[in-house]
Amino acid sequence: MLYNFERSSMKFQFINIGKSHDATLKNAIDDFTKRTNNYYPTEWLLVPPLKNAASLSEITLKQQEGKLLLQKINKEDFLVLLDETGKQMSSVELSKFIEQKANTGVKTIIFLIGGAFGVSDEIKQRANFTWSFSKLVFPHMIVRLLLAEQVYRACTILRNEKYHHV
Amino acid sequence: MLYNFERSSMKFQFINIGKSHDATLKNAIDDFTKRTNNYYPTEWLLVPPLKNAASLSEITLKQQEGKLLLQKINKEDFLVLLDETGKQMSSVELSKFIEQKANTGVKTIIFLIGGAFGVSDEIKQRANFTWSFSKLVFPHMIVRLLLAEQVYRACTILRNEKYHHV
Repeated sequence: MLYNFERSSMKFQFINIGKSHDATLKNAIDDFTKRTNNYYPTEWLLVPPLKNAASLSEITLKQQEGKLLLQKINKEDFLVLLDETGKQMSSVELSKFIEQKANTGVKTIIFLIGGAFGVSDEIKQRANFTWSFSKLVFPHMIVRLLLAEQVYRACTILRNEKYHHV
Repeated sequence: MLYNFERSSMKFQFINIGKSHDATLKNAIDDFTKRTNNYYPTEWLLVPPLKNAASLSEITLKQQEGKLLLQKINKEDFLVLLDETGKQMSSVELSKFIEQKANTGVKTIIFLIGGAFGVSDEIKQRANFTWSFSKLVFPHMIVRLLLAEQVYRACTILRNEKYHHV
């Protein structure tokens, strides 16, 4: 049975602190985001970095970024934190994860990409799920691309479309 | 102690069956490849797809692609097969892996990206190591980007450079 997207009013929000997408990757990220948007409304929220970031210690930076980020997250949002300490999923498991959130009435799934030094303890505690792509560390500009592609792929799996080879 | 690149005559070869890099990712892939080339000579070998690929069964396609690929691999090359059934490494583990190959006199490390349906049994048997990036499935155009970035990252780790945050 195909998943009924029409019945769901869920949306995706991708959040990252940092500047606009890297020029060499922007078109690919925009492309996957636009494709995902055909299944669920999807938007990027790029939070401008703190102006004094370079002068702050790693811990202070994480705390201040954490406060900024928490202001963007509503109480009822389902927060997925992307962090290497998290649990890995296969692409099919991600599709089931998304389906299950839609089926249990989640309105917004936020996928939050942490900064270069990780995220604050407050964000870790707020997260409903912590997801790791890989044991490998990728630059956040590439993480943005992987996130957009995997969420798109998950939607095609739910729709039983040909993009994902089994 | 920093790793002595000058003493090594090793090189990297990235092999994939398929057309030239995706237009939206080409600049990023070229950029990381060029950067890696500052540490070890690095080249892409893109093997043109079989002309009758669409008319072949998956098994026949894999076998015929396998024969093509084996012609590109010399007996003494160290073949790393990228495949989701492989072993995951962290970025630091990858850097140690590369260092160890250089120290044991490997002249060429080949990183081979499989096709959409995987690779033939002959290639699996020829592989000296099978490496999995992640439980996630990525399109091969993105795998190319990840490979170029991770090998570059591994080189910066060996040189103790700032690119990789610990």
